[in-house]
Amino acid sequence: MQGVAIIGAGQTRYGDFPDLGVKELFAQAYFEMLRSVDRGLDPGMIQAAYIGCLSAGGGFQLGQLAPLLMGHVGLPGVNAVRVENACASGGYALFNAACAVASGKFDLVLAAGVEKMRDVSSSKGRYWLGVSGDTEYERLAGSTFAGIYALMAARYMHQYGLKREHLSMVAVKNHRHAVNNPKAQFRREITIDQALKGAPVAYPFNVWDCSPTSDGAAAVLLCSAKMAANFTDRPVYLRGFGAASDYLAIHDRDSITGLAATRKAAAEAYRQAGVSPREIDFAEVHDCFTIAEILAYADLGFCEEGRAHHLLEEGVTQLGGRLPVNVSGGLKAKGHPIGATGCGMACEIFRQLRGEASEPSRQVKNARLALSHNVGGSGGTAAVFIYQGGGQ
Amino acid sequence: MQGVAIIGAGQTRYGDFPDLGVKELFAQAYFEMLRSVDRGLDPGMIQAAYIGCLSAGGGFQLGQLAPLLMGHVGLPGVNAVRVENACASGGYALFNAACAVASGKFDLVLAAGVEKMRDVSSSKGRYWLGVSGDTEYERLAGSTFAGIYALMAARYMHQYGLKREHLSMVAVKNHRHAVNNPKAQFRREITIDQALKGAPVAYPFNVWDCSPTSDGAAAVLLCSAKMAANFTDRPVYLRGFGAASDYLAIHDRDSITGLAATRKAAAEAYRQAGVSPREIDFAEVHDCFTIAEILAYADLGFCEEGRAHHLLEEGVTQLGGRLPVNVSGGLKAKGHPIGATGCGMACEIFRQLRGEASEPSRQVKNARLALSHNVGGSGGTAAVFIYQGGGQ
Repeated sequence: MQGVAIIGAGQTRYGDFPDLGVKELFAQAYFEMLRSVDRGLDPGMIQAAYIGCLSAGGGFQLGQLAPLLMGHVGLPGVNAVRVENACASGGYALFNAACAVASGKFDLVLAAGVEKMRDVSSSKGRYWLGVSGDTEYERLAGSTFAGIYALMAARYMHQYGLKREHLSMVAVKNHRHAVNNPKAQFRREITIDQALKGAPVAYPFNVWDCSPTSDGAAAVLLCSAKMAANFTDRPVYLRGFGAASDYLAIHDRDSITGLAATRKAAAEAYRQAGVSPREIDFAEVHDCFTIAEILAYADLGFCEEGRAHHLLEEGVTQLGGRLPVNVSGGLKAKGHPIGATGCGMACEIFRQLRGEASEPSRQVKNARLALSHNVGGSGGTAAVFIYQGGGQ
Repeated sequence: MQGVAIIGAGQTRYGDFPDLGVKELFAQAYFEMLRSVDRGLDPGMIQAAYIGCLSAGGGFQLGQLAPLLMGHVGLPGVNAVRVENACASGGYALFNAACAVASGKFDLVLAAGVEKMRDVSSSKGRYWLGVSGDTEYERLAGSTFAGIYALMAARYMHQYGLKREHLSMVAVKNHRHAVNNPKAQFRREITIDQALKGAPVAYPFNVWDCSPTSDGAAAVLLCSAKMAANFTDRPVYLRGFGAASDYLAIHDRDSITGLAATRKAAAEAYRQAGVSPREIDFAEVHDCFTIAEILAYADLGFCEEGRAHHLLEEGVTQLGGRLPVNVSGGLKAKGHPIGATGCGMACEIFRQLRGEASEPSRQVKNARLALSHNVGGSGGTAAVFIYQGGGQ
């Protein structure tokens, strides 16, 4: 298996951009990625492109979005394909781009994601998201993702003594992290009081427990490890990548205080990387709802099941702690443009591992190994990646 | 790069099945595939699944269709993802499943496709297809795929002396081939007179020049070449696989008497396989419209550009000819359930190369090498595969 490195990464700011369509968003991320390649790159060398997007069908372009976007940036002939697993679409773009390089068939492959969520009515937006759960057993019964994750949170509270305050601690932490991230949608701190008193959504969630709807795009360029030195002295290696699925409907699952898809994907990523969870220096995890970050801690091996909220109490996962999580602001505050999210995590990690965080104040110090974690829907799919930098 | 073999294949009949949803169609193809594995297989050994589908959003399930389908057949934990490139979605499922095995990360990977086209209004169906062309330059201007391929046909007629009769010869040939294929949607011969006198669609096309809307599913199981002998003595090897894109809008292309995406994908497949077009014994090509099969002949290297219709005149591409094309009936008569088509071609070739055509009368004799060719939209994408059997 051919080794895989990241040699460039780019990302739009996430947010509300009524004047930008998917083509423009994608182009912004793509060209920022190109500019980030230390020794430059002839774009014609890019051989394949995997593009994550859920809502391509929302009135604009249902089919063949991938070649359309590549044609828009001047690369019409590249082998381009859209991959879709709801909110994990970007993670699966990255996973399959990594497989394509690992196969030896390609040496330079783009992994990207894009989503335009803010130009449709909120009811249409909710429809899109809802149909990533189980249509027959969940959507047609009226449930939403907020409702489904709220069930998980309520169960976790019952079973492990999680308090409402712990959920808010995730929101407060991630908002604080986002303040110095120019790519983040919400660059403002919130207090624990604010976070506790937002407008109700679905018990125990209020609005501060929920990630926003966002427009945005992200792109990373994968290169075979053997060729990476042609383009940079500071590649970031993709040491392990795993992906797994689960039943979409949560009533089919053995447990709802963790995501089996995450656990399986993480096991594969750790196995391939030959790394243990203790060695991870920082992580970007899928906090679509505050409980999702809490579930991720144990699912990724950062603590034992049921102990996740203690990491929050001890400040372990804040910037400056032993294992900072979502220093970008996470989905909660950086934003969550569905298809882009998984690749945006890789973009953040690429920069952090090279000591190039956008603001020195939010640079994770002395990091060598990082992890990203991208979930589809309520855990129907998950993809986990382990990255290694060459030091800062 | 790890060698790739096909060890099982299954397919529903293509047609109009108001009593079957995507889950049921997928399950039919999947379980037929399982039964076709000579020495049987513990389904739990399947590690990943790539599922091609375009219209997952059509009221049923927009996101995470792939894990939903795998959960339905009892494999919820498999790493499953949907890949989409319009009518080539099945081909890209196969391509990426092949990359996944070639990478060495997996040894047993499912490639499948499914589409449910016949349970929505015909206007909605046309909408789906239309948004696989270029939305801004083609769909919003009112063009359809029939109209776009008709432009290609008209240009080919002008430039190379193609007659209206040559288009009909494709339809007559493929309908004749489908008669003995129990999986085909239209199992009836048509005469050249009938084919010339169908209801007009878009000049020069009439209804007999157009593939139908179809429900259906297909599945093939890929295995690393080194493990194939555990499951069968008669694997079919995937010797080469190529895929490429082009501008979606045909006004951007240098030529419309051929598809650049096909030519590029074919060049890569031939290169990888170390095979020349002359060595191909039979082929399944993408005849979504009659002109598409004619364009494919030269694009795949079966003849020089502009000479394709002479192959029809000489009977080269009919069953019994030197290079039979679409012995299954092709998209025209076997049917064209968008996401399934590319995998259905692989299913047909798997059986033919093993001497297991459903009816002896339609068995291609003494074949060793075969090719399949799957196109997205009007040539925005294409995937080409070269298969080698072990003899019959």
